[in-house]
Amino acid sequence: MEICLHAGLRYDGAMAVHDFCAQRLFLDAPLHPGGEVALTRDQANYLRNVLRLADGDQLLVFNGNDGEWSARLACKGKRDAALLIGDRTRSQTPPGQLAYLFAPLKRARLDYMVQKAVEMGVGRLAPVVTRRTVAERVNLDRMRANAVEAAEQCGILSLPEIDTPQRLEQAIAAWSLDVPLVFCDENAATADPITVLSGLREGMTSPARIGVLIGPEGGFDPAERELLLRQPFVVPISLGPRIMRADTAAVAALALVNAVLGDWR
Amino acid sequence: MEICLHAGLRYDGAMAVHDFCAQRLFLDAPLHPGGEVALTRDQANYLRNVLRLADGDQLLVFNGNDGEWSARLACKGKRDAALLIGDRTRSQTPPGQLAYLFAPLKRARLDYMVQKAVEMGVGRLAPVVTRRTVAERVNLDRMRANAVEAAEQCGILSLPEIDTPQRLEQAIAAWSLDVPLVFCDENAATADPITVLSGLREGMTSPARIGVLIGPEGGFDPAERELLLRQPFVVPISLGPRIMRADTAAVAALALVNAVLGDWR
Repeated sequence: MEICLHAGLRYDGAMAVHDFCAQRLFLDAPLHPGGEVALTRDQANYLRNVLRLADGDQLLVFNGNDGEWSARLACKGKRDAALLIGDRTRSQTPPGQLAYLFAPLKRARLDYMVQKAVEMGVGRLAPVVTRRTVAERVNLDRMRANAVEAAEQCGILSLPEIDTPQRLEQAIAAWSLDVPLVFCDENAATADPITVLSGLREGMTSPARIGVLIGPEGGFDPAERELLLRQPFVVPISLGPRIMRADTAAVAALALVNAVLGDWR
Repeated sequence: MEICLHAGLRYDGAMAVHDFCAQRLFLDAPLHPGGEVALTRDQANYLRNVLRLADGDQLLVFNGNDGEWSARLACKGKRDAALLIGDRTRSQTPPGQLAYLFAPLKRARLDYMVQKAVEMGVGRLAPVVTRRTVAERVNLDRMRANAVEAAEQCGILSLPEIDTPQRLEQAIAAWSLDVPLVFCDENAATADPITVLSGLREGMTSPARIGVLIGPEGGFDPAERELLLRQPFVVPISLGPRIMRADTAAVAALALVNAVLGDWR
């Protein structure tokens, strides 16, 4: 169980604070009114001694399926505890339609990238191994922990699926033809990414099923880039005249896709 | 002098690698062909013993004014060195038109936010202190070091100005009426940020002189929000249904502004 110690950083002055200032907890357990979720000793210790929650203290819990619920800590003896589930505070949100394919970066940047992708509403995290991928083995548990942390801090109720890593060639071969896969290409024919993305709107549901692909340090190698550009579903977009780190490009590309084709409209 | 140890993380498969794989160095000195820049002992030590550059090794240097130049290390004796300036490899780019106003975050996130803002081409970094600003004193030297590092890693030639921190009220009072100040407001009247930003295009130069304002952890307080919304130049945009950390919202908002009004077109 991941627990956030910090409230999410709001990007605005909105007044409704309960949903991120309260302690939000991901619980891998079914949630229903009046339910009781027993905590492991580690979990109980964390809530009682790290977060210093006392018997009866309130928090918010979610499991990725049943929405968000208020819950109270029920201490049992010196070291055990359970959570008593109260009312549903928010109903479950649908899973994100956005698939995010990315070459894993090294540790801290990968943590960051995963957290950001979750904040951007990504529904599927798909690590792809490319020729220039520098990261050591991909730690999927760590990716999941980062996804949970971001969801807890940012009031997100739907956790992304996390794929096992596959090679870029496999990911391309397995891609469904009717779903655009946006990739950031400095040499894209059209400079303006808004124009390119708007051109995809026709006949698409909203929010659209779409993928965003971000390359590794050093970018895709020429053969990989050609492979991508040969695919009918691949949509190259430019992200301007400056070089960006991959994790910056990720947030930028996901923001444009959300704004033009996603749930920011 | 800041020196980057890592190549920038490319966001694409573009082939031109020289400008970010080569060691890029910010030098606070005038640059002209045939010039020689003496290095301090610390700088010489860094290049010779940390980066392990040998006499005659090539690197790229820039000073924020004179473009980018090739240079060679000239070792002098056991511990000193100079840089011999060769040809200009790129001419100076104009300063960014984008002003980025932000409530300083705590250390690591502020470092990150400054680096990202530079990658997004921000020409001015303006820390604003709000009622909910949690950061301790703002370390402007550290901000500058982060800006230089991002510029070195991402092939950026124009370093942003860095303002001394001011209160939000001062920043608003000093703002020029003809420059839009975009701020991210969950309760913005229009959901679609692209529509709102496109509406600003008329009569604006491109890239546009524009500001982006990002609030602190916990957001602006109600009085601050009202102050902002009262200003004729303030443009509230929504960044979708999810809560975002401030540093995520920063990259997202700067990406939208760059794409609709900036130099990504």
